[in-house]
Amino acid sequence: MEKIPVGVLGATGMVGQQYIALLADHPWFEVTYVAASPRSAGKPYADAVAGRWQLAKPYSPAVGPLIVEDANDISRAAAAAGQGKCAFVFSALEMGKDEIKALEEAYAAAGIPVVSNASAHRWTRDVPMLIAEVNPSHTDIIPIQQTSRGWDKGFIAVKPNCSIQSYMTPLWALIQAGYEVKRMFVSTMQAVSGAGFPGVPSLSIIENVVPYIGGEEEKSEQEPLKILGSVTEGAIVSAEGPLITAHCNRVPVVDGHTACVSLEFGSKKPSIEEVKKIWSEFTALPQELKLPMAPERPIIVREEADRPQPRKDRDLDKAMAVCVGRIRPCNLFDLRFVGLSHNTVRGAAGGGILNAELLKSKGYL
Amino acid sequence: MEKIPVGVLGATGMVGQQYIALLADHPWFEVTYVAASPRSAGKPYADAVAGRWQLAKPYSPAVGPLIVEDANDISRAAAAAGQGKCAFVFSALEMGKDEIKALEEAYAAAGIPVVSNASAHRWTRDVPMLIAEVNPSHTDIIPIQQTSRGWDKGFIAVKPNCSIQSYMTPLWALIQAGYEVKRMFVSTMQAVSGAGFPGVPSLSIIENVVPYIGGEEEKSEQEPLKILGSVTEGAIVSAEGPLITAHCNRVPVVDGHTACVSLEFGSKKPSIEEVKKIWSEFTALPQELKLPMAPERPIIVREEADRPQPRKDRDLDKAMAVCVGRIRPCNLFDLRFVGLSHNTVRGAAGGGILNAELLKSKGYL
Amino acid sequence: MEKIPVGVLGATGMVGQQYIALLADHPWFEVTYVAASPRSAGKPYADAVAGRWQLAKPYSPAVGPLIVEDANDISRAAAAAGQGKCAFVFSALEMGKDEIKALEEAYAAAGIPVVSNASAHRWTRDVPMLIAEVNPSHTDIIPIQQTSRGWDKGFIAVKPNCSIQSYMTPLWALIQAGYEVKRMFVSTMQAVSGAGFPGVPSLSIIENVVPYIGGEEEKSEQEPLKILGSVTEGAIVSAEGPLITAHCNRVPVVDGHTACVSLEFGSKKPSIEEVKKIWSEFTALPQELKLPMAPERPIIVREEADRPQPRKDRDLDKAMAVCVGRIRPCNLFDLRFVGLSHNTVRGAAGGGILNAELLKSKGYL
Amino acid sequence: MEKIPVGVLGATGMVGQQYIALLADHPWFEVTYVAASPRSAGKPYADAVAGRWQLAKPYSPAVGPLIVEDANDISRAAAAAGQGKCAFVFSALEMGKDEIKALEEAYAAAGIPVVSNASAHRWTRDVPMLIAEVNPSHTDIIPIQQTSRGWDKGFIAVKPNCSIQSYMTPLWALIQAGYEVKRMFVSTMQAVSGAGFPGVPSLSIIENVVPYIGGEEEKSEQEPLKILGSVTEGAIVSAEGPLITAHCNRVPVVDGHTACVSLEFGSKKPSIEEVKKIWSEFTALPQELKLPMAPERPIIVREEADRPQPRKDRDLDKAMAVCVGRIRPCNLFDLRFVGLSHNTVRGAAGGGILNAELLKSKGYL
Repeated sequence: MEKIPVGVLGATGMVGQQYIALLADHPWFEVTYVAASPRSAGKPYADAVAGRWQLAKPYSPAVGPLIVEDANDISRAAAAAGQGKCAFVFSALEMGKDEIKALEEAYAAAGIPVVSNASAHRWTRDVPMLIAEVNPSHTDIIPIQQTSRGWDKGFIAVKPNCSIQSYMTPLWALIQAGYEVKRMFVSTMQAVSGAGFPGVPSLSIIENVVPYIGGEEEKSEQEPLKILGSVTEGAIVSAEGPLITAHCNRVPVVDGHTACVSLEFGSKKPSIEEVKKIWSEFTALPQELKLPMAPERPIIVREEADRPQPRKDRDLDKAMAVCVGRIRPCNLFDLRFVGLSHNTVRGAAGGGILNAELLKSKGYL
Repeated sequence: MEKIPVGVLGATGMVGQQYIALLADHPWFEVTYVAASPRSAGKPYADAVAGRWQLAKPYSPAVGPLIVEDANDISRAAAAAGQGKCAFVFSALEMGKDEIKALEEAYAAAGIPVVSNASAHRWTRDVPMLIAEVNPSHTDIIPIQQTSRGWDKGFIAVKPNCSIQSYMTPLWALIQAGYEVKRMFVSTMQAVSGAGFPGVPSLSIIENVVPYIGGEEEKSEQEPLKILGSVTEGAIVSAEGPLITAHCNRVPVVDGHTACVSLEFGSKKPSIEEVKKIWSEFTALPQELKLPMAPERPIIVREEADRPQPRKDRDLDKAMAVCVGRIRPCNLFDLRFVGLSHNTVRGAAGGGILNAELLKSKGYL
Repeated sequence: MEKIPVGVLGATGMVGQQYIALLADHPWFEVTYVAASPRSAGKPYADAVAGRWQLAKPYSPAVGPLIVEDANDISRAAAAAGQGKCAFVFSALEMGKDEIKALEEAYAAAGIPVVSNASAHRWTRDVPMLIAEVNPSHTDIIPIQQTSRGWDKGFIAVKPNCSIQSYMTPLWALIQAGYEVKRMFVSTMQAVSGAGFPGVPSLSIIENVVPYIGGEEEKSEQEPLKILGSVTEGAIVSAEGPLITAHCNRVPVVDGHTACVSLEFGSKKPSIEEVKKIWSEFTALPQELKLPMAPERPIIVREEADRPQPRKDRDLDKAMAVCVGRIRPCNLFDLRFVGLSHNTVRGAAGGGILNAELLKSKGYL
Repeated sequence: MEKIPVGVLGATGMVGQQYIALLADHPWFEVTYVAASPRSAGKPYADAVAGRWQLAKPYSPAVGPLIVEDANDISRAAAAAGQGKCAFVFSALEMGKDEIKALEEAYAAAGIPVVSNASAHRWTRDVPMLIAEVNPSHTDIIPIQQTSRGWDKGFIAVKPNCSIQSYMTPLWALIQAGYEVKRMFVSTMQAVSGAGFPGVPSLSIIENVVPYIGGEEEKSEQEPLKILGSVTEGAIVSAEGPLITAHCNRVPVVDGHTACVSLEFGSKKPSIEEVKKIWSEFTALPQELKLPMAPERPIIVREEADRPQPRKDRDLDKAMAVCVGRIRPCNLFDLRFVGLSHNTVRGAAGGGILNAELLKSKGYL
């Protein structure tokens, strides 16, 4: 099968680099178009990221010589699309929220689907916020989005914040198994890579904890409700619950967000053993479709007393699995556990690629 | 005033070293007796800790030449006591719980009061578990303890686990102000010094989080109840509440335990401003008595969005103050905040010294 | 081709775990025998390492059920060898130097070749200390070793200390190109994994540097001379030079030893460009033989001003390549550079496996 | 004695904050004037540093309400000077080298002496680069500087780079004792605070080493020569030697630069014992004058095998002492040792204050 030519917007940034790295040997997609800020525009990608490449894994030789385009210049992307060099774009744009919003809409209007990692459109009522294993049916909003906006091929689909991925899939697995979750208490210990580059100054975080991440607690409390919501005429209506309270902290870890969670169920409550069984056996559409980026097991249950740990468990199954452990009763609610996911793979580029695979397999790309 | 000669049991260990360092220029107490394991016994203290001294602050020149005694040999301590060289001992013993229990009782039986940092006697019904600002009245159990055990001068008083000190004083300040606390959710990020030396291997914690500390969650959930309890005939009876659930984590921080807390009050609920006022203005008996180790303000309220932070706030007011911040409403309960205290000072040796000062000022020493 | 059954001595330790992990999908070798201390003996490997497995990568399912044997009981290994279950052993023993020496000799005497990671036999005159790319010809001592000791199939081959691997191959590449190296100044920044587990206490190294590693400087100064030496009748005679001085430091890095090096050449001196060319183009016997564990390029030259860096470059080419950078003139000597290698892969288990592959390809195994 | 009113230029930056903190209870100097970039100008200092205060120690209450002036507006400083509110300024300016050069000259021309921490004037031939214990006589250039430039009260004096302070005083102590140092090899492990704030991104340095610091090696190789130079008609003439080669590295340490050093002496060589004696007994003019910021012992010799260590030794004697250890012979040169100093205290603000104290005691201020 011939690979689909894709573009990456914000290709020189932290998340953009992750996209470039992860797509290096992707079986379906091939990076043929890279765009970034005017500062980088016109340079070969290799020059644009010289001295700024953050990953241990190098970018693919094929991407090095690609000339970086100005992400603001949609005509360039449209031209590339016309020449069959950009079937859709991954958006890892780093600019003001309103600029990103307008720019992503402009790409969509130009007939270029946008699979975005940015937060700008997360609360746009007709834009799906996808976790492929949790709410794949939310893609049903796309035709509605296209019609109402008068877009033919173009559309926008986004992914949620990285910090909630450590518990959203486990949460969903329990709900799907028939256990309503009423209330959830979450306390996170998040990696510095979540703040991009240069991001968190070393003077702020070495041998320290910063018990605050701007906007993170609000996102952690609200985004799950849209993800658990339902598609109706013209909009995705958020779910009523669970009611969530979050304490978000930054710790001196490079990659991997860890979350301590307490759950309160409705009248029907699973036993600890049932929870372990539900999580160990959970699979969803991405696994059924055998999507290339999908982990074999979306949730990996560790029985050791002291796992999961970010440095030791973040890379499991292509860094796309959520690793859970310390599954035990809660004194206040019903269940306590620790969840972990790789914030720049599962929580960012990897999750975006999985969303694109889902959209492709559903015929939207 | 002539200084009171004191002994330190387990003087070569991590907490023992903290006692030696903090007592270096204490206005009331003077270290004249040091005891440790048979391995160290017979050596000058300087030799016993050579290459094992963990603190940036050096020990006082006066302690270096003291010959380390065998902590198991009570006769040596009794002799020293007889010669007016050991009015009471600080116990920082590191051995099996039952051995510590028996040994501390033997010292008390020999007429040597024991102000202990060990957990062995925390649940002994006639032994007070003191936080000087919270339950100073629990010293009332001491005469009962002495009578029932047939001890004249000797007795045992202990302090609670280091991890709860980041929120116990704030909790008490609210209760004392008339706000019942029904339920409490706590998630901690604890420093490696809490595990002693060698303690946590660097391979386990560098660029990592370990979401488990053996026994810590149980202590965090139960010890507050005894501290908030009341002295009755022959025993301290634990309080009914609050009901607590704890998630305890180890992070790559040297000193300072950070806690994310959510509180649920009874029918009477304080406003955020009232909480800040109560905490900022809180003082207790140690402040009233102007005890040397007492912080001027037991609770320091930070208004910055991202404080407290262990590296920046752990040393406030002789490292004896609890620093709180991020005081805000909770979506599930009523109040959210972050508390911080220095685990090896306020949470260990410093807290023990403050307890001794309290006991002295009450005439027990 | 059928895989060769191999044993791992000290299989539960840090380096032993690395061997188990790296051999998981080795094309030539298959772990069929595991031995460790009496404490672990009799347990399935999975149980023996439960809660002690240090690596992100899990061990292979095939090894989990293997019963751990007592490494001191050679008869068990001999029996396994007899049943074709242990053609040779990798030694990652962690015990006293003399015990290891005797034990490795006993295995060899029992007809079981020993490819060792231990330092015990590094200075045994008839035992080769191999870096496959540098002194593969030193295997010529093996027949001499066997004859003089009256061993038939058995023999002992060792590898050098991990810390010298960051510069030995680059050093050799220059010597081989005809540039005599007279003097070498080395200052290292070494990872904590080099000290095994539990190894370096976190209290000693978090936010700190320890400018001392016992015995490391001596090894760094002497081992290169044996490696650069020549095989004569009955012994390997060390080279006269280069004269080396080493400053060895421990830094808060998990894996990867970094070395700052200054070299003084003889009368014939290469230009910076020649040095880069020699290193970029260097290959040796392991590459020629296409040994499975051999890196494609033994030396990777980075041109960026701030590389190599342990976290970003240690894993290059199966973590078997040496990465060099900052190649520039020296004010005192002739050349300055920074070298990096992965201490637990290239510097330990990976290097041992490569040595075994070399020995196999030469017919010694 | 009434305190001398002083100003701090660049008062909101990293080094500026250090000045404010260290001068909080200085017996001679009192901060009465603070200036920074136009961005901060007009705000009370407390507001200007809100959320940006990097130090554990808070600034003094007296400084909080001071209105920050625009550092570019010399007229404001001159007015303050006229009102007796700014006898001289500490320069911690962070801007382009040429701007700093011009600005510091403008202050001096306006009659305001400048004691600078900036590198701009380090190589200005008539500006002394002072380490109070090493080259106090270089203040003799000041009258020459004033005459040639037509300045009456104003002048400029600077301090050298932070990284060389870990070995310059030990080096000088040996030279002064009659031991010529021919050649010096230095490899440093430097703290992140040396790069200011935000400075080094955490993504670059957590669990990593960066073997490069722009310009640092050149400074380390050249500045010692000017410091060891001599004052002649109209200029300070650099010394001929020692010849130095430096490898500068950044490590994940907050404060404290560590240096591994090898020294080659002239024909006259001291024994290890002599070196220890010379360093332990070394004192200089600042000690003789009992300057407030001067350490009692400029050089502290540690005998432990594994010291000095930044976290444990950087704060010795007000963080103004240089701590040395591992004093041993060198295989290539004559002497090896490890030196440590606190880069933001001894190496920056503290060193600047000590220089001001020296200048005051000599009557220049």
